[in-house]
Amino acid sequence: MQLPTSIFVIQRGVLVASSDFSVVRGMRDMLPDVAKKKQAIEDRIRKEFEAYGFEPIETPIVEDFALLSAKGSAGESIKDDIYYFKDKADRELGLRFDLTVPLARVIVNNPQLVKPFKRYQIGKVYRYDKPGASRYREFTQADVDIVGSSSIMADYECVALAYKIMKDLSFNFSIRVSNKKLLADICLASNVPEDKVKDCMRSIDKMDKVGVAGVKKELSEKGIPSEVMDVIGRNDLKEIAKLVKDKTGLNELQELLDYCEKSGLTEFVKFDASLARGLEYYTGNVFEVTSKNEKGEVGPSVGGGGRYDNLVETYGGPKTPCVGISFGVDRLVDLREKELCEQLTQLMIVPIGLEAGKECLKIGRELRAVGLNVENDLMQRSLQKNLEYANKKRIPFVAIIGENEIKEGVMAIKNLTSGKQEKVKLADTKKIKELIKTQEETKEKK
Amino acid sequence: MQLPTSIFVIQRGVLVASSDFSVVRGMRDMLPDVAKKKQAIEDRIRKEFEAYGFEPIETPIVEDFALLSAKGSAGESIKDDIYYFKDKADRELGLRFDLTVPLARVIVNNPQLVKPFKRYQIGKVYRYDKPGASRYREFTQADVDIVGSSSIMADYECVALAYKIMKDLSFNFSIRVSNKKLLADICLASNVPEDKVKDCMRSIDKMDKVGVAGVKKELSEKGIPSEVMDVIGRNDLKEIAKLVKDKTGLNELQELLDYCEKSGLTEFVKFDASLARGLEYYTGNVFEVTSKNEKGEVGPSVGGGGRYDNLVETYGGPKTPCVGISFGVDRLVDLREKELCEQLTQLMIVPIGLEAGKECLKIGRELRAVGLNVENDLMQRSLQKNLEYANKKRIPFVAIIGENEIKEGVMAIKNLTSGKQEKVKLADTKKIKELIKTQEETKEKK
Repeated sequence: MQLPTSIFVIQRGVLVASSDFSVVRGMRDMLPDVAKKKQAIEDRIRKEFEAYGFEPIETPIVEDFALLSAKGSAGESIKDDIYYFKDKADRELGLRFDLTVPLARVIVNNPQLVKPFKRYQIGKVYRYDKPGASRYREFTQADVDIVGSSSIMADYECVALAYKIMKDLSFNFSIRVSNKKLLADICLASNVPEDKVKDCMRSIDKMDKVGVAGVKKELSEKGIPSEVMDVIGRNDLKEIAKLVKDKTGLNELQELLDYCEKSGLTEFVKFDASLARGLEYYTGNVFEVTSKNEKGEVGPSVGGGGRYDNLVETYGGPKTPCVGISFGVDRLVDLREKELCEQLTQLMIVPIGLEAGKECLKIGRELRAVGLNVENDLMQRSLQKNLEYANKKRIPFVAIIGENEIKEGVMAIKNLTSGKQEKVKLADTKKIKELIKTQEETKEKK
Repeated sequence: MQLPTSIFVIQRGVLVASSDFSVVRGMRDMLPDVAKKKQAIEDRIRKEFEAYGFEPIETPIVEDFALLSAKGSAGESIKDDIYYFKDKADRELGLRFDLTVPLARVIVNNPQLVKPFKRYQIGKVYRYDKPGASRYREFTQADVDIVGSSSIMADYECVALAYKIMKDLSFNFSIRVSNKKLLADICLASNVPEDKVKDCMRSIDKMDKVGVAGVKKELSEKGIPSEVMDVIGRNDLKEIAKLVKDKTGLNELQELLDYCEKSGLTEFVKFDASLARGLEYYTGNVFEVTSKNEKGEVGPSVGGGGRYDNLVETYGGPKTPCVGISFGVDRLVDLREKELCEQLTQLMIVPIGLEAGKECLKIGRELRAVGLNVENDLMQRSLQKNLEYANKKRIPFVAIIGENEIKEGVMAIKNLTSGKQEKVKLADTKKIKELIKTQEETKEKK
């Protein structure tokens, strides 16, 4: 058994706190600055999902292990990669590792759902991976899926959404697309034996990590002819089009690329023959969203998806074409350095004296009623201490109110950035709101 | 070992699907109608939290068992009531059963946080309870806590927030308040021996379930004089004020009640001497929010909280006064029958023919760009089928677009409720938005 980590907090050389309790390995706490950023990113993603007509669902984080390990989906070996446990009635359970498998269960159990069923879900998922930079054991995914449509327009909608979200969040990015059938066809046309195609694709999937030479080496070791890597390395769709015999995958991909071209996404959406997308359940077009830094250098993957027309059947449902895309919210949070969200609290009411403080509770309520986010002093601190607090918390406005102000029915609102101060009537809550909104907007324009 | 539940879906007497995969016992899926309601409730709660100057944090759902079972908090016996398991490195873990214990850990580990630290968190928690009506093993809590303030104004802020949220969600409700010190003082003044006071309070806590007589019986069995229940049964604060020797708890409660009276909450906030709030960690004022049905009959508890000035110390931190309140989001979702949220999707574009359908992808994008939620046809269905779909999904407007419309650069927007149809230019996206917004508002007013 491993002992829990101990924490010692030392300030200016003095031990101020110690604790045997730390966050679980591979997971993290988000303090307000990070949590606000995450919330703002999720809100924007949600807004785009809803703009495309997707509706939310929620499923439990805990699922039956039988579901998580079903044959044709993740398989029994998933046990090594997830949090697996038994409940007190000896049921085998696990924490979900994605939002797609639970969706397939929902589809099978609810055949009454009108098709196409366009759902989104934003939720936490768990993988027992080796923790690393931007690689957590608990992380949040934001998924959209279109259930019941075999149209490539549905594939396009996933790509268009990815484009819109990445633009909206001001990221540099590219979206790589390919097709699982086409990749299999390329293998076959390059003399890979039919029974080695899946194995070959698993090796190709590693190209990002090990390069063309690395994949070639692995293929040789597996006894698979490695000339397929020459075709893939050249990444020339026209050449591939001539090469492959069955045109189904090619046509699916071509239709997707046509829609992207027609809507001006060509700059961002590129064919990549090496894209295999690890998960075995993909059956058609696949996509991967990759961030880029300011120099245009490729960063980590922040999302991906594709068509999976057989998964619902795997779980006992009728044949149901599906396509979807998933965004890694934690990756987006970590990559996004700039502040994304506005300051939540707009005004702090600073009373002078206890009796004024009590009156200020009411003033706070009245200002919240017109839609302002207002903090009252709950520490009965001095004016100076309260101003220090407001500055530390980056609250842009303070209203200083003593007993004289209350008698006169006025308050002085001070803009802590510009130093500008204005006297307003306490009863004039709408004017106070205007004043704060106007000055906030002026600041934003600067 | 228990076998997984099998699901057979039969429509019109025919087996259309069967599955061995169901939702985990005690948990639930939320399909869009429920998930939208939950999201709308969470959004409103969050808005109120932010209006009072609270900021979000996020902590993992998985915590060290050592934290969850710490002495002075839940204790080792909590193992029976939670999901407990070991990871592959034999670490003892558990799913969190509330959001307060993780907050205490965050406070201990982050002494740099500026005080008062006003945080909110909305997240899932887990209890291995017997499942029942509105009693789930996975449910969502929405918590606010004020860390570092010992002022009763902070207690008041929790109660004021509860009032505001319940009003905002149009619930009938009452907020019961009491004080743990006062309850102990009542026990002492009623001849309960000092070493039996805690035990006595545990019995009093059951009054809601077993009534005065039931508690009296339990007290007799424990050998505790049961006259305390006469005082509590009469629930008369003036009598109690004369009775108790130490006035600390009384004064804390009285100050809270004074703030409530001053702000017009007296109708909703009532003293209840029997309120003990199960959790041992409360040290001062406690509150409980109870829903009422239209007849004014008391329904289930939907929230509660109180002051816990010792919990942070329990986890190895410095003495830190804290007060907070927690709302049970699932209870609110289940109690709230009426639709709360607007229809998300506002317009469906119905193309006539495949080529028009492709053009419509662009039109959809342009309408989303002005802020409308728009669904494209992804099934290439007939006009009639698409209208049926829009009706089933309660989408209020459809735009029917054939090749003629595209040539002429117009579309006909039909209000599916009123039957009213209007021709507008495709390029006039802002006018289209106006048209939809105006008609939506007219409908809401009716």
